Amino acid sequence: MAEFKTVRGMRDFLPEEARLLRHVEGRAREVAKLYGYREIVTPIVESYELLSAKAGEEVKSRMFLFKDLGGRDVALRPEFTASVARLVATTLRNEPRPFRLFSVGTIYRYDEPQRGRYREFWQTNYELMGSSRPEADAEILLLTNSLMQAAGLKRFAFKVGTIGVLRGILTQEKLVDNVQSTVMQLMDKKQYEDAFRVVESAGVSETCMPTIRKLVELKGSNVLEVVDKVADLVNGYEKSVAAARNLREILGLVLKSRADVDMTVDAGFARGLEYYTGMILEVYVPDLDIALGGGGRYDRLIELFGGDPTPAVGIAHGVDRMMLALHEQKAAQKAAGMAEEGRTVLVVPIKEELRGEALRVSQMLRNAGVSVELEVMGRKMAKAMEDADRRKMSHAIIIGERELKEGAVVLRNLAQRAQSTVKIEDVAQTLKSSP
Amino acid sequence: MAEFKTVRGMRDFLPEEARLLRHVEGRAREVAKLYGYREIVTPIVESYELLSAKAGEEVKSRMFLFKDLGGRDVALRPEFTASVARLVATTLRNEPRPFRLFSVGTIYRYDEPQRGRYREFWQTNYELMGSSRPEADAEILLLTNSLMQAAGLKRFAFKVGTIGVLRGILTQEKLVDNVQSTVMQLMDKKQYEDAFRVVESAGVSETCMPTIRKLVELKGSNVLEVVDKVADLVNGYEKSVAAARNLREILGLVLKSRADVDMTVDAGFARGLEYYTGMILEVYVPDLDIALGGGGRYDRLIELFGGDPTPAVGIAHGVDRMMLALHEQKAAQKAAGMAEEGRTVLVVPIKEELRGEALRVSQMLRNAGVSVELEVMGRKMAKAMEDADRRKMSHAIIIGERELKEGAVVLRNLAQRAQSTVKIEDVAQTLKSSP
Repeated sequence: MAEFKTVRGMRDFLPEEARLLRHVEGRAREVAKLYGYREIVTPIVESYELLSAKAGEEVKSRMFLFKDLGGRDVALRPEFTASVARLVATTLRNEPRPFRLFSVGTIYRYDEPQRGRYREFWQTNYELMGSSRPEADAEILLLTNSLMQAAGLKRFAFKVGTIGVLRGILTQEKLVDNVQSTVMQLMDKKQYEDAFRVVESAGVSETCMPTIRKLVELKGSNVLEVVDKVADLVNGYEKSVAAARNLREILGLVLKSRADVDMTVDAGFARGLEYYTGMILEVYVPDLDIALGGGGRYDRLIELFGGDPTPAVGIAHGVDRMMLALHEQKAAQKAAGMAEEGRTVLVVPIKEELRGEALRVSQMLRNAGVSVELEVMGRKMAKAMEDADRRKMSHAIIIGERELKEGAVVLRNLAQRAQSTVKIEDVAQTLKSSP
Repeated sequence: MAEFKTVRGMRDFLPEEARLLRHVEGRAREVAKLYGYREIVTPIVESYELLSAKAGEEVKSRMFLFKDLGGRDVALRPEFTASVARLVATTLRNEPRPFRLFSVGTIYRYDEPQRGRYREFWQTNYELMGSSRPEADAEILLLTNSLMQAAGLKRFAFKVGTIGVLRGILTQEKLVDNVQSTVMQLMDKKQYEDAFRVVESAGVSETCMPTIRKLVELKGSNVLEVVDKVADLVNGYEKSVAAARNLREILGLVLKSRADVDMTVDAGFARGLEYYTGMILEVYVPDLDIALGGGGRYDRLIELFGGDPTPAVGIAHGVDRMMLALHEQKAAQKAAGMAEEGRTVLVVPIKEELRGEALRVSQMLRNAGVSVELEVMGRKMAKAMEDADRRKMSHAIIIGERELKEGAVVLRNLAQRAQSTVKIEDVAQTLKSSP
């Protein structure tokens, strides 16, 4: 028989990786709670019409698209935003703003698999809807900072920019929308010269090209200064100046929050998706050179989905990549609290007839919060202990007739090879205080 | 523009439902830990070859089946067991037995949607591999009991049986496998007369029909007595007697565990899936008449997936149905700890210039574990308070210049309409002790 395998691009999380995954998910949920983001769970299968409504050609061409048995064109979600926008445009339409929404789950894109990139991958997603104010943008950055810290990452940094400065120039230079999008996509891929050629061939003003060429050079971690330089440079492009001022306000608020944030402003920073309208940001790991998350402001998106005009800012984080970064930074084990896992207990009856009692003691211990594995292989004591050792269990509880009569069991510390008789009701406490 | 909708059979979980879903998932993970089940996360998209390997025609005909962009026949998993079996037959092949595995996530079946039944639904799944002993079967029942209690269900009960008694009769009467399966499926649907006709037309012995007819009548909550009657009745069918004895052992162990379990034995109980080999069980809610979970022993399954012979027993629970039952039993709100959610705090600066300080105070509070929403709409104080009231937030923190100079803020209890000035570092503690 041919061996069964996972489908190309998909992966299994074995127990240690699954624990790390759930750790990141759990921290993300805590951060959501701390910032007032309420969780929603939307389907993985959505209509293709919805998922393709605002997706670029590239995303569309890589969807897991199919017909369900009812002949409907459906696909596996390639991101959360379309589903969230659907909810905001329909079910949540009349809810008072703002609302803050959190999602976590799997996402599907038929990309070429590579390190840290799968066709089924996990994201956390935060969206703040209803506010166009800079404190909303600042909040998205700060919560990402909190999430990365809470997940256990030692080193990470933000790249921040605004789509508004470049859009302001291109709009004033009368470039049509899809040409603007082409420019943005080229810049997102850091193909600056190609981007410049597209702009130039559109017949722009004399000042335009030198401005753009200087613009993409402006970057640095002295963020307010960089933004001021940007504002000076684009003087004359009214919307660009406004965008720079908006970014300055956002960054000023972040600095005032006194959160420990490592930020760089990059005026040449662009993101491929067409729907951004203001600040854009990425969080990345310097030693890995991969983005762990990205997002920004998209004030016109909800309208595209048929909803009321709703300013919005949001971000998605790649959980698989965060896990990869945790491994790279040797922080995975600590992050997932592996140490805690050591305290697991094997319960072994010394003979067949005591299996019922072993079950009863196991239930009592579980009721007291102790993780218990019952010996279910019918092995002799020595074999069972050997196996518990190999699996790095911390303790064994031996159920014997004599001790049971006194309401007690033998508690053996497997690491220290020491044992003592302990009253059943004291076992949980003894385990807690055991080294 | 036509309104976007969820695909038929799919559903959104709005915040309250999402919280209940995550509550059940969290309790299931805790129960897994308490019983020593390690979590694995397998892909939702698996090869059709894998998923169809042991599935009956009915399951196969209702799969979400499609070709991925690489031309592979893939499907959305209609259960967890095939994926777990794949892992056990491959990656985990050489791991020491027993192993206990836990999974939770979405499952896909193209069934007709009805109350509590969706085409995308959530399951928790526990499998104990490597032990053929009755204590393993007892453990699966006991952990389900623990899960239902932990989830907050007030009333639930178990129906227990064994596929072995009927299989023993049919095998000794020389019915071929697929006819046996037809009989089982008919009995699963409680179409007993149809099942009897199939057996009778196979040309069975004289004693067979009266035995089977009496067998399906045997049921009751005096479980050991019922099993003894079954053993008496099938006297002469050797494997059936052995199966009854095995069930008696399992139930005896459950009773000895002294767990508070409501059980009925039903000798006419069958489950449609072909791969069960021993004990079968369902947990159901009497007032709803729906099964919340089901499973049993399937000792030959891992071999079917190319693995080494591995006795196994497992169970899956329907999370959506557990949620429905919690609602029906008016236990949902308590279960999900909705009360706790009340303690949410709105932070409002009294003027624009204090937004940075508002962010800073928000960060400090979050670092102390307080859930904080920042006012991001730029509303006047009265409007912001009105909105906080409507959204049932418990407190507001007002950031004013005068208080800030003394390292303090105004803390307003929205329910009691009382407020006081509190040092920032004391806010978390004050909130905790606030009524």
